[in-house]
Amino acid sequence: MANNESVDWQFSGSDEGKAASEASLSTYTSKLFALCDPQGKPILPPRGETAETSHTAERAVVKAVLFGTGNAYAPSIGLPAAKRAVADYLNRDLPKKLSPDDVFMTVGCKQAIELAVDTLAKPNANILLPKPGYPSNLIRSIFKHLEVRNYEFLREKKYEIDLDSVRAAADENTFAIFIINPHNPNGNTYSEAHLKQLAVLARELGIMVVSDEVFRWSVFGSNPFVPMGKFSSIVPVVTLGSISKGWSVPGWRTGWIALHDLDGVFKSKNVLAAIKQFLDLNSKPPTVIQAAIPTILEKTGKDFFQRRQCFLKVATEFAYYKLKSIPSLTCYMKPEACTFFWTELNLSCFVDIEDDEDFCEKLAIEENLVLLPGINQNSLSMSKVLRSIRIAFTLENWVRHSIDMHMPTLEDAFDRLKSFCDRHSISGETPFKVVNGVNEAPLKAVNGVN
Amino acid sequence: MANNESVDWQFSGSDEGKAASEASLSTYTSKLFALCDPQGKPILPPRGETAETSHTAERAVVKAVLFGTGNAYAPSIGLPAAKRAVADYLNRDLPKKLSPDDVFMTVGCKQAIELAVDTLAKPNANILLPKPGYPSNLIRSIFKHLEVRNYEFLREKKYEIDLDSVRAAADENTFAIFIINPHNPNGNTYSEAHLKQLAVLARELGIMVVSDEVFRWSVFGSNPFVPMGKFSSIVPVVTLGSISKGWSVPGWRTGWIALHDLDGVFKSKNVLAAIKQFLDLNSKPPTVIQAAIPTILEKTGKDFFQRRQCFLKVATEFAYYKLKSIPSLTCYMKPEACTFFWTELNLSCFVDIEDDEDFCEKLAIEENLVLLPGINQNSLSMSKVLRSIRIAFTLENWVRHSIDMHMPTLEDAFDRLKSFCDRHSISGETPFKVVNGVNEAPLKAVNGVN
Repeated sequence: MANNESVDWQFSGSDEGKAASEASLSTYTSKLFALCDPQGKPILPPRGETAETSHTAERAVVKAVLFGTGNAYAPSIGLPAAKRAVADYLNRDLPKKLSPDDVFMTVGCKQAIELAVDTLAKPNANILLPKPGYPSNLIRSIFKHLEVRNYEFLREKKYEIDLDSVRAAADENTFAIFIINPHNPNGNTYSEAHLKQLAVLARELGIMVVSDEVFRWSVFGSNPFVPMGKFSSIVPVVTLGSISKGWSVPGWRTGWIALHDLDGVFKSKNVLAAIKQFLDLNSKPPTVIQAAIPTILEKTGKDFFQRRQCFLKVATEFAYYKLKSIPSLTCYMKPEACTFFWTELNLSCFVDIEDDEDFCEKLAIEENLVLLPGINQNSLSMSKVLRSIRIAFTLENWVRHSIDMHMPTLEDAFDRLKSFCDRHSISGETPFKVVNGVNEAPLKAVNGVN
Repeated sequence: MANNESVDWQFSGSDEGKAASEASLSTYTSKLFALCDPQGKPILPPRGETAETSHTAERAVVKAVLFGTGNAYAPSIGLPAAKRAVADYLNRDLPKKLSPDDVFMTVGCKQAIELAVDTLAKPNANILLPKPGYPSNLIRSIFKHLEVRNYEFLREKKYEIDLDSVRAAADENTFAIFIINPHNPNGNTYSEAHLKQLAVLARELGIMVVSDEVFRWSVFGSNPFVPMGKFSSIVPVVTLGSISKGWSVPGWRTGWIALHDLDGVFKSKNVLAAIKQFLDLNSKPPTVIQAAIPTILEKTGKDFFQRRQCFLKVATEFAYYKLKSIPSLTCYMKPEACTFFWTELNLSCFVDIEDDEDFCEKLAIEENLVLLPGINQNSLSMSKVLRSIRIAFTLENWVRHSIDMHMPTLEDAFDRLKSFCDRHSISGETPFKVVNGVNEAPLKAVNGVN
């Protein structure tokens, strides 16, 4: 149709998202799954197979679809009924109550993280992030050219936050500390006393606390979950959540951000306005699921969560038992929350494994089993100039295992893991065999300190 | 709990989104609905009341929920089955076929627009947008500090694109022309011959064509919808769509962007990579609705769309008839698509109406009836420095009326509109009374030319 002369097209794709995208967990996940052999043994963990969904949640969405209650554009800040339901739900555990106006609906917890980063990012500002930590906030910070500083954990105190490392990392340009509670990937929950210490320190530093609480329903240890919002009389707190993990509905993309204000500081500091503006300009969660949120939050019975917690506890005990027979992997603390194990590679045990990435790639190729690498980074001081960064959980030579599988599958996964580790290990005595479990751990560098 | 000394909090909200948010249509919509009296007569158009949803779509989502087929995180580029279904659907009308790899799932058509703007925005680049036009792409461009240039329409040619205005606006920094087809708010569709002319011109200018085709299922005039993708052998084309309008499921937040490539230029110019990176870093549409997309696209009967088109045609005829009795409003072309009327205010007829915004505000206050103002802007050359901008549809002293109401409601809406206009008009002869309809229109400035 057109003439055949070549055209000098004036457009090209931006590379604004390149560095952040390459560092994202999904890049590693996709790469590892792609290394598996679809013709081989079943690929583990089985993709697309999830825990049993809450029937209450299913029924609520079906009702919203069939009654048409979600067939309308919702206000950009969220459907009023959903905002009210989230406020009421969170208020169950809070001395200082939220109003529906303090809650904004988001496209999953991921957009709540974007919102917290984007609306607060400023030139020369920095943010404190956990090392290790689930990297969504880190990836978003890279994308927004925000300087990231890490704080660390005390292994000997069951992975409490190392408050000294927080103090050391903060300066007058720090605006927030992000925490993950329960922590992904460490798998612990923070005690009330510890969170209060953190609140007092954050107040002293003049920074807000942003708490990602998406795994609050997956706690099965003896330490109960305490919401950070409880300390909003000390420090301004932002909490993030979604229904994905708690109700086993990954992919429903409906979450929230809640502002636990202190003396109106979120309003006076323009945070409230910035959030509304951001939501005006960005994607919204499906109204048809927002419309189901009141029923989902109010009507799901405790037994649903208890059944799930029991399942995860049994899987954890079993995985911990199986890990004891793999001397080249060390798990310092039996998880009490979330759906993962986080273990250190004892590289000296292996004959031909270079690092965590090499470990995970060979494991995927040889065993059709995907564990996620901790991956290190070369530089985290990435304000403006991005240097070579390789992120994942930002801790090198560790790996994260999913244990969210039914028993025979989980046993298969750990048998493959053991077989792989044995095959690649120095034969003979296995001095690390007895170290799984925090008490028996040899004195090594504290997790998170390079 | 904490000491009472005042704290110098180190955070504050960004004002990055302020200008764009203030200019967004939802800001105007919310403001106008807030002016209505909830205790007065029914507020029109009725909010949250939508046309009958496709039962096929409802059943497909219900099935996905109950069978759990959407209970998993989808790849960031979209669920493979949904991508394939969209490609197959669009291919029905295309000589050059799309592959599923050319399609990416988005959070409604709005995120598809974000994607097209964000991945192509570069310093000093400019983009051609329609005046008037639905402002999402404009708002996003403001947010991304992109220079916006307008092209206009030929009223005497049933609102065809004024190709001379396109040529005049483009230069060596122009990378794309965005079109809306069917056009919102003009309410027309472009002929095959006209789209081909546009394609040839865009090729000559070295720019891509981005076509928002979200209203393609709401065409009821004699001019059939022709997809821009048909001309991808002339020029690289990006089309945007979603199920919201066609299936009457606003709020389901599931759309797509399709790249109709020419000689691999999207790949070689890094557009493909930029889109994937953007999607890695931003929100995703709900998997549970993506999973229903194949059934929704393949199984919805023609009769569903025909019923809807017939409803809109009848409403349009009725509204056009009613408008004839309102001399202060001129509709130059009876719409042949979409769900709106776009009419010019004859300001000289009014005694106490200053402009379109004043008109819409007084109408909302006095009649509980919301029309959206065209609103002008003071400057569209907004690269880097944002000057006073007030956007909406970017055409002053025009208004957009929804006609997507059942007959008695629609009659009520137009009776209130007439009563309001009569009350605020100069009494006596009404010389504009006969001008509704393009043939009778007096020779005035061509719509869109300042």
